[in-house]
Amino acid sequence: MFFHRQELQHKAKPDAPDAVYARKLQEVLGGQYGEITVALQYQFQGWNMHMPGKYRDLVFGIGAEEMGHVEMLAVMIAQLLEKSPLGITDEAVQKDPTVAAVIGGTDIQHGIVAGAGARPVDSMGNPWSGSYITASGNLLADFTANANAEMQGRLQVARLYHMTDDHGVRDLLGFLLARDTMHQNQWLAAAEELKAEGIEELPVPSNFPLSKEERDVSYQYLNFSDGAAASEGSWASGPTPDGKGEFTYHEGPTTTAPYPAPTHPDARFYGTTEVPNRIEKIAGAAQDMFHKE
Amino acid sequence: MFFHRQELQHKAKPDAPDAVYARKLQEVLGGQYGEITVALQYQFQGWNMHMPGKYRDLVFGIGAEEMGHVEMLAVMIAQLLEKSPLGITDEAVQKDPTVAAVIGGTDIQHGIVAGAGARPVDSMGNPWSGSYITASGNLLADFTANANAEMQGRLQVARLYHMTDDHGVRDLLGFLLARDTMHQNQWLAAAEELKAEGIEELPVPSNFPLSKEERDVSYQYLNFSDGAAASEGSWASGPTPDGKGEFTYHEGPTTTAPYPAPTHPDARFYGTTEVPNRIEKIAGAAQDMFHKE
Amino acid sequence: MFFHRQELQHKAKPDAPDAVYARKLQEVLGGQYGEITVALQYQFQGWNMHMPGKYRDLVFGIGAEEMGHVEMLAVMIAQLLEKSPLGITDEAVQKDPTVAAVIGGTDIQHGIVAGAGARPVDSMGNPWSGSYITASGNLLADFTANANAEMQGRLQVARLYHMTDDHGVRDLLGFLLARDTMHQNQWLAAAEELKAEGIEELPVPSNFPLSKEERDVSYQYLNFSDGAAASEGSWASGPTPDGKGEFTYHEGPTTTAPYPAPTHPDARFYGTTEVPNRIEKIAGAAQDMFHKE
Amino acid sequence: MFFHRQELQHKAKPDAPDAVYARKLQEVLGGQYGEITVALQYQFQGWNMHMPGKYRDLVFGIGAEEMGHVEMLAVMIAQLLEKSPLGITDEAVQKDPTVAAVIGGTDIQHGIVAGAGARPVDSMGNPWSGSYITASGNLLADFTANANAEMQGRLQVARLYHMTDDHGVRDLLGFLLARDTMHQNQWLAAAEELKAEGIEELPVPSNFPLSKEERDVSYQYLNFSDGAAASEGSWASGPTPDGKGEFTYHEGPTTTAPYPAPTHPDARFYGTTEVPNRIEKIAGAAQDMFHKE
Amino acid sequence: MFFHRQELQHKAKPDAPDAVYARKLQEVLGGQYGEITVALQYQFQGWNMHMPGKYRDLVFGIGAEEMGHVEMLAVMIAQLLEKSPLGITDEAVQKDPTVAAVIGGTDIQHGIVAGAGARPVDSMGNPWSGSYITASGNLLADFTANANAEMQGRLQVARLYHMTDDHGVRDLLGFLLARDTMHQNQWLAAAEELKAEGIEELPVPSNFPLSKEERDVSYQYLNFSDGAAASEGSWASGPTPDGKGEFTYHEGPTTTAPYPAPTHPDARFYGTTEVPNRIEKIAGAAQDMFHKE
Amino acid sequence: MFFHRQELQHKAKPDAPDAVYARKLQEVLGGQYGEITVALQYQFQGWNMHMPGKYRDLVFGIGAEEMGHVEMLAVMIAQLLEKSPLGITDEAVQKDPTVAAVIGGTDIQHGIVAGAGARPVDSMGNPWSGSYITASGNLLADFTANANAEMQGRLQVARLYHMTDDHGVRDLLGFLLARDTMHQNQWLAAAEELKAEGIEELPVPSNFPLSKEERDVSYQYLNFSDGAAASEGSWASGPTPDGKGEFTYHEGPTTTAPYPAPTHPDARFYGTTEVPNRIEKIAGAAQDMFHKE
Repeated sequence: MFFHRQELQHKAKPDAPDAVYARKLQEVLGGQYGEITVALQYQFQGWNMHMPGKYRDLVFGIGAEEMGHVEMLAVMIAQLLEKSPLGITDEAVQKDPTVAAVIGGTDIQHGIVAGAGARPVDSMGNPWSGSYITASGNLLADFTANANAEMQGRLQVARLYHMTDDHGVRDLLGFLLARDTMHQNQWLAAAEELKAEGIEELPVPSNFPLSKEERDVSYQYLNFSDGAAASEGSWASGPTPDGKGEFTYHEGPTTTAPYPAPTHPDARFYGTTEVPNRIEKIAGAAQDMFHKE
Repeated sequence: MFFHRQELQHKAKPDAPDAVYARKLQEVLGGQYGEITVALQYQFQGWNMHMPGKYRDLVFGIGAEEMGHVEMLAVMIAQLLEKSPLGITDEAVQKDPTVAAVIGGTDIQHGIVAGAGARPVDSMGNPWSGSYITASGNLLADFTANANAEMQGRLQVARLYHMTDDHGVRDLLGFLLARDTMHQNQWLAAAEELKAEGIEELPVPSNFPLSKEERDVSYQYLNFSDGAAASEGSWASGPTPDGKGEFTYHEGPTTTAPYPAPTHPDARFYGTTEVPNRIEKIAGAAQDMFHKE
Repeated sequence: MFFHRQELQHKAKPDAPDAVYARKLQEVLGGQYGEITVALQYQFQGWNMHMPGKYRDLVFGIGAEEMGHVEMLAVMIAQLLEKSPLGITDEAVQKDPTVAAVIGGTDIQHGIVAGAGARPVDSMGNPWSGSYITASGNLLADFTANANAEMQGRLQVARLYHMTDDHGVRDLLGFLLARDTMHQNQWLAAAEELKAEGIEELPVPSNFPLSKEERDVSYQYLNFSDGAAASEGSWASGPTPDGKGEFTYHEGPTTTAPYPAPTHPDARFYGTTEVPNRIEKIAGAAQDMFHKE
Repeated sequence: MFFHRQELQHKAKPDAPDAVYARKLQEVLGGQYGEITVALQYQFQGWNMHMPGKYRDLVFGIGAEEMGHVEMLAVMIAQLLEKSPLGITDEAVQKDPTVAAVIGGTDIQHGIVAGAGARPVDSMGNPWSGSYITASGNLLADFTANANAEMQGRLQVARLYHMTDDHGVRDLLGFLLARDTMHQNQWLAAAEELKAEGIEELPVPSNFPLSKEERDVSYQYLNFSDGAAASEGSWASGPTPDGKGEFTYHEGPTTTAPYPAPTHPDARFYGTTEVPNRIEKIAGAAQDMFHKE
Repeated sequence: MFFHRQELQHKAKPDAPDAVYARKLQEVLGGQYGEITVALQYQFQGWNMHMPGKYRDLVFGIGAEEMGHVEMLAVMIAQLLEKSPLGITDEAVQKDPTVAAVIGGTDIQHGIVAGAGARPVDSMGNPWSGSYITASGNLLADFTANANAEMQGRLQVARLYHMTDDHGVRDLLGFLLARDTMHQNQWLAAAEELKAEGIEELPVPSNFPLSKEERDVSYQYLNFSDGAAASEGSWASGPTPDGKGEFTYHEGPTTTAPYPAPTHPDARFYGTTEVPNRIEKIAGAAQDMFHKE
Repeated sequence: MFFHRQELQHKAKPDAPDAVYARKLQEVLGGQYGEITVALQYQFQGWNMHMPGKYRDLVFGIGAEEMGHVEMLAVMIAQLLEKSPLGITDEAVQKDPTVAAVIGGTDIQHGIVAGAGARPVDSMGNPWSGSYITASGNLLADFTANANAEMQGRLQVARLYHMTDDHGVRDLLGFLLARDTMHQNQWLAAAEELKAEGIEELPVPSNFPLSKEERDVSYQYLNFSDGAAASEGSWASGPTPDGKGEFTYHEGPTTTAPYPAPTHPDARFYGTTEVPNRIEKIAGAAQDMFHKE
């Protein structure tokens, strides 16, 4: 169950309206790596988790916090839009090119659809999508996904920080940056803990029998581009991070197989085939096809 | 530039047709973590990269290999579909409930749209989307994204391995599992190398001035759910993975702010407001609105 | 069957080109609540309706009108784009910041994709989606959906009215506003008529046996936020609109249940579990898994 | 801010696994009118609301409850999937057509992607989309949207009720049906209260000056289909629900306008035009086009 | 303007219910090449057309017919669903695996969302999308798009023909096949007429000055795969269809350029760069960044 | 298998940065008819093809080239973005309305998400979608789709050519225009060759027995709009392009059928029906429904 309190985790009040910046903030509210994504991602991981205890408490504990971050961004966006022209026709606006320029950069739907309110979309207006979420049931994979989400998220907030001088906005972003610092650290720590406790290890999934994979190519760097410098990396020689092999380096593939013969499905799919084969098949198909009518 | 060779990296020939399994394989061809995703993700990372050398060679070297994996899966799917009934009406089919069941589980578009061919979709028929890709320009973030993609991908292939007995299919999956093992290891090694070389560090992005973030909350575990076990994890006490702080644990938030006042945008957006304010504003707006007509 | 007549229901001719406004008009052509939505929504309701007569005639009668509204907006948009620069490079354009600003606010695809023509998209460029449509077969629910669609639609047209001074555009919008007034009234009247005739009643669906629902909580306002004013509304005490109960007000839930135990699916899904359980299950699974190979 | 408690509002435990039914339940979790939609819709309405007090408390109070409904459905789905075959190859499965049929009807990604967990998708696998949400800032419109959402939602739950015999599932659905009964009643009451208090009235938006709309057609039923029975409805004669007019009935349109002349945009868009005009324009365009190169 | 008549162009009545087939028919109603696509595509081409007369009359004349085809398919689907179990629990259903299999193959939303009605989706449940439409303003390109749409559409209908024995369904499909035959012929004739009248020619767009394109590579077949047989085609030697050149054949590219240097955007985007350059830039950026705070 | 070479087919270096133009170029990289579409479309056609030889070599040979075009556009876009302001706050920017205007017209995600890099999206920010691809297995249909794709693509590049004065960009576009000229010619030649060799003919699919279609309407122009000029076209009289009939012209339909009776599905779907029928059905349904509980 979820409970809402009409307070915010941090002040979210801009110095001044800025409809163009409001649009930009939508990215970290409703984008691929925005707060809706992490809020729902952590909760789905919790609902699907296969054991009780500290890991499940962890995803629930952070998931609810992220819902509050969605809220802070939404109310910030609404305030940035509050006094903005947003396309209302007005002679002054039309004659001032800077204002006109601002209009060009706004989220049009902020005005027409939401009446100067926040929207569940990214900075280019794409609606948030459930396909952004990762919750596989395998915690080592998912905590890596979470670490990545917090890295991408903090990176985007850092970029947004430089796109405004508004002290109120920067104040909120400074808070979100700190929480992202925490969450990056936390997911990396949690991933390490899974390994330290022997619950999961590399490669993911660790309990799939390695004997079933084609071990000959498990640690080969196969170079399909012509840049030779890739051979200089730690991924081209030396021990592998999973502790189970040694990297080697090869130009191009080490294995090859001839191209399989083209398929010849039922002629009634009307795929194009070589003539003789085609006619023969059609004849047979036609029989099947007509005898029952 | 890309060059194609009419060979495969590994044999991709099933023992027998299986249209239901063909649909399942679509997940790792055209799903969120399928081969199209990694092929294009690594290439976009290369095209956007801000330095030459081993890291760029790395993403190009693997990106082209992944395009070849898309191909192996596509030709495998086409062969799995080759002799399948795929919904063609036939009395025997209609009377055999197992065959009828098979039809129920197929990708309908494999037959109607592709004529027994592979499609750029996932196992539920959702078309592949550009929004699956991550290429931020920050390599530590992106290599973490790549490691996650390879973990999720290998996990899905491992699950698919158990959903068939076909030796030809399992043979191909065993090869893909091995390559995913390699790629997990490689991206983790590359992420470590970025840190070892001092190019990037944690938290991402590492050169954003930490003094600008609200450091008071940078290492606090704030528990917004009521599961107390989260306090037992390595994310709740001790040094942080970025080497710059100490974790602490708190029930609920350590900061709070009152809810901001509701916004009152231009009355011509026709948002609902308290009555007196509303009437006053409408009067003013009406004047603006009418004087120019 | 549908027949087209090369006339419009109302004049649709702008005074002057305005490519930025053309983009804004796309919202009511191809947005969530645009004319394509209502045109197809009413028609699907007609095709799926389970009885002949006045209600079916109603949805067909209005559905075809709405197709004509799509047309009026499309030709209006094409004319607004006709003489606009739309990004064609021209020295004058580049040097005049107001014109430059205009370019920033246009739908880029109006020029590149449609050659100065209308598009089946909303004002942010999202393609129209079949998921905008509601046609459930239950007319009380669907007429409420229709009333909502006409309210949202008229609201958006009203906002758009203030975003231009063009008399030709405002003339058309004044016509659409009037038709939306009609359609709001009509769907509300139709919903009432369904109830007056005893065909449907509240709650929807009315013939699901109420004894099957958990009647204890059917009229309780449960407050999951901490705003106490919700207790003052007509939804917190007094008779309910369906005439079958009395509202009551409660802080938080009136019922609760312990969290169910975590699931433990087949180990071959490689979900993360507690260690002992995991090992035991893997052992068993491995047996299953290997004996057939 | 949001807080999570590891309890459920109602017991959510099925009698037996049923992977096909788990897929069906996804509709009311992640579909157009599922619980994610209402949870986020009410919260966005709150974040964007232009006045404090009972209406804002109302949307926050219910919004948080709906997040808890998402949770109940998610844990129910995970349990329905727990012991299901989900496509794992097994001889018994292959030989039992009922089990084979079950596999045909499952959400393939439940197994491959989520490892027997819930997903943020609908029953056909479409990811949840931000475009499902309505939050316009106009409360009379939005509460009508909310009433519709609860009607569609209760209708879908009622249909799902008959698609299972599982007592645990039916028990949960009986609870959700009751809450939907409450929420239908509540939004209808809230919409009436807005009108009773004089805050909003019909047509939405009520404070747009009616004199600006083309009042001649504001209450005309215009019949664009040939079903004559539509003239018998209460929408074809008598007073209108907004109390501001009288319905009238007409076959076809009462207004008409000639089709506007085709547009002739800049020739450099290469649209097809009549020959003479085209050549002339190309000549001019060519001059513009070439003189600067 | 559009007018609807409550008649169909052809009888649309199945012999018997078939919910699985109803799902398959959705492909040609709401798929990429379904009737909604062509209906709206031709109308958008008409609304955007830059000249009056026979070509515009043509797209309007066919566009309205296609709306009637959408209708025929929708009522057919509703009838196929009318008596189908669609997942309603019933002991007989549960025990009969053939019926169970049927349930596995249905569109789940046909039951839960539409109450046994048609939906604006394809056979895999993807909602129809505005991105399926092509209306560029260039008629030679668009008529080629139309010819393709009718080819893909007729191909899909032909495949569907073999997936049922129902005489009523086949009767309707036989009618649609004939209309697709007509429409393929018509668009090919119209494309030829554009060329015969000198309005358009190849390559599209024909009035872009050929001197501006890199004519050296305008007729070269460049082979980027290793299949040598492509040299045998009519596209590898001889005159070109546009009448303006001669095909030639080459292995691989005939031109090449070195890879451009990596970009170095503003350091405040936090992209990863070589170390020395990075530090230098950050220093500069930091100055800019801090002096104004 | 695919191999990558770190060279480009043509120089891709702009004279100067231009972030607005970078956004426009995204259309031909990641739009409906962009290079990702043709690259993957031709490869899927190859993977699904039912015969070896020249046609398969053709699609593979061109498909790989198109991947290289994606690359050229991506690196061009990254360079156009390299020195652009992209929204970074800077006093000069804020005060210069031309620069402000530029910001309004950029792809916001170029900065926030990609750090001044290219993205897999179109010019309005819609992510590339697998639904853009056509690969049906029928080569005459698919080569027509390919010809259309190259026409639309060349048309868009031609429009883009006029939207910039940058010599580096125009140089690349001049190269792409030439390749599109080649590819239009090639697909048209290949379609003709299929017919010349007797492999396919019109109408597509040509081996569906024409006796099964309703031949009476196979060559009738049926005019559903009121524009009479359509009767003047070559599609209204004379021989048909498939060589199998004569066009005729008719006002409106030549066939008609009464509207089918409304459906009456199981009452437990709660669709709205006429009252007496409804009550009767509910009674029966209720019995079914309750006896088993």
